[in-house]
Amino acid sequence: MENYTPSLDAAFHSLADPTRRAVISRLTRGPAAVKELAAPFDMGLPAFMKHLSVLERDGLIASEKVGRVRTCRVRPERLAVAESWLSEQRQLWQARTDRLADYVETQMTGSDTDAD
Amino acid sequence: MENYTPSLDAAFHSLADPTRRAVISRLTRGPAAVKELAAPFDMGLPAFMKHLSVLERDGLIASEKVGRVRTCRVRPERLAVAESWLSEQRQLWQARTDRLADYVETQMTGSDTDAD
Repeated sequence: MENYTPSLDAAFHSLADPTRRAVISRLTRGPAAVKELAAPFDMGLPAFMKHLSVLERDGLIASEKVGRVRTCRVRPERLAVAESWLSEQRQLWQARTDRLADYVETQMTGSDTDAD
Repeated sequence: MENYTPSLDAAFHSLADPTRRAVISRLTRGPAAVKELAAPFDMGLPAFMKHLSVLERDGLIASEKVGRVRTCRVRPERLAVAESWLSEQRQLWQARTDRLADYVETQMTGSDTDAD
């Protein structure tokens, strides 16, 4: 059974929304003020701020307020946890298909052995 | 603005739950019957079946019924879409930190230039 992994739950939850993914994509290019982040979206500021809250609560971004300006940055180490999990699954699957391929090859070349 | 990507929404949505991730992990090792998949979980079959429905609707698994036995398999190409997205973000971030490092190095070695 898998261990309890709240950070994976949270990371994948945040990533299931296209606005939140677009914010992450923007922040991988460098920190940005909330106003700048919100500009490309056809959405009211309260709705947009809610997405930022979710991203911050889920640990994928951090923010800091200086004077009247709140600046956000991505937390790449949290994205890395999600990517590692997916990469691990791919490796497990790949290992299995490699073993299957080896088995099929053994059956085809070892023609003096019965294979039913 | 990011393109509309329903398969990413769906994949990340499914992955935000530890039971569903555990099912995926099991299926990367090979297809399995529902009964076998459900066995390790301390959860009623209806609740477990609901998780399988979500995974199937979100495109991460497929299932086939032969006689009375329903067998599930993972759809690795859908996991790959999610992994690629995360990998792309990491590369963007890495490219940025590399550029920052280059800049700092330039400033430190080019001592005849003012850097304030």
